[in-house]
Amino acid sequence: MNSESAIEAGIRSAKQLLVDGITPIDREVCIQESLDLLERSEIAMVGSTDENGYPHIKAMFKIESDKLKSIWFSTITSSRRVSQFIRNPKASVYFYDAGCIAGLLLVGEMEVLQDAESKERLWKEGWEVYYPLGVTDPDYCILRFTAKYGDYYRGLQNITFDI
Amino acid sequence: MNSESAIEAGIRSAKQLLVDGITPIDREVCIQESLDLLERSEIAMVGSTDENGYPHIKAMFKIESDKLKSIWFSTITSSRRVSQFIRNPKASVYFYDAGCIAGLLLVGEMEVLQDAESKERLWKEGWEVYYPLGVTDPDYCILRFTAKYGDYYRGLQNITFDI
Repeated sequence: MNSESAIEAGIRSAKQLLVDGITPIDREVCIQESLDLLERSEIAMVGSTDENGYPHIKAMFKIESDKLKSIWFSTITSSRRVSQFIRNPKASVYFYDAGCIAGLLLVGEMEVLQDAESKERLWKEGWEVYYPLGVTDPDYCILRFTAKYGDYYRGLQNITFDI
Repeated sequence: MNSESAIEAGIRSAKQLLVDGITPIDREVCIQESLDLLERSEIAMVGSTDENGYPHIKAMFKIESDKLKSIWFSTITSSRRVSQFIRNPKASVYFYDAGCIAGLLLVGEMEVLQDAESKERLWKEGWEVYYPLGVTDPDYCILRFTAKYGDYYRGLQNITFDI
């Protein structure tokens, strides 16, 4: 079992599902499982679009969330990611659990926040390593993602739902 | 240590870097580390763009790769992902290692291949669970990603390089 590859594990899990029979995931279960996946994930994959229209992906620490609707991140104001979102706020956030082969895609918009209230509220002890001037560092900013809809994958099923 | 969060681990690692001093990663090391990260990763995050211009992300099994230039995936021909790439081949592939806080973004184009040679060469034993008709199943297809450039992140450094 130790040498089983991810591809082999996927096949094994899919075979078991076909033996057991696939139970359709209803909307309520889907939203609960999506929320559980989001809440146990410390890292999110964040999707943006570059100036030439190519999709970009970056792993970011999830700082805070409000159900499936809002997720907050912190980043460097002068970063490429921030200039991408200022130019084009269309965004996605993706969470993946390799253990249960489940994925949650949230699609929506990303705002770049530089107000003192947000920066103070979300500041974490030790972040001077990233933002040497502390909570008022102009190179420290907050990203707030707001989801419009979600797409949850688990057990060979894909469910799309409004948020 | 067991209860250390990902955010705390990031801060600890960044603090240590600032104590030790940041050694700039040169192009050769960057390409070697990128290749190592790609080769040890079984799962990639694949970026596409939907019909409304929103970036999407999906975890996919990496089937095969040729250095940093080409990566092959398999998927369902009738899937949303395939229709997105037929409409807009702009794509990205992202690998992330949470342990060493390293990420590799590859940006390029995705082709949808349905030729028998590619489908036969990349077929894996057991895939009938996904494609019941086997290697000739019209709902089985190959995605081939070709990278134009890469962006590697590790140790608070970001290096962009042509491929």
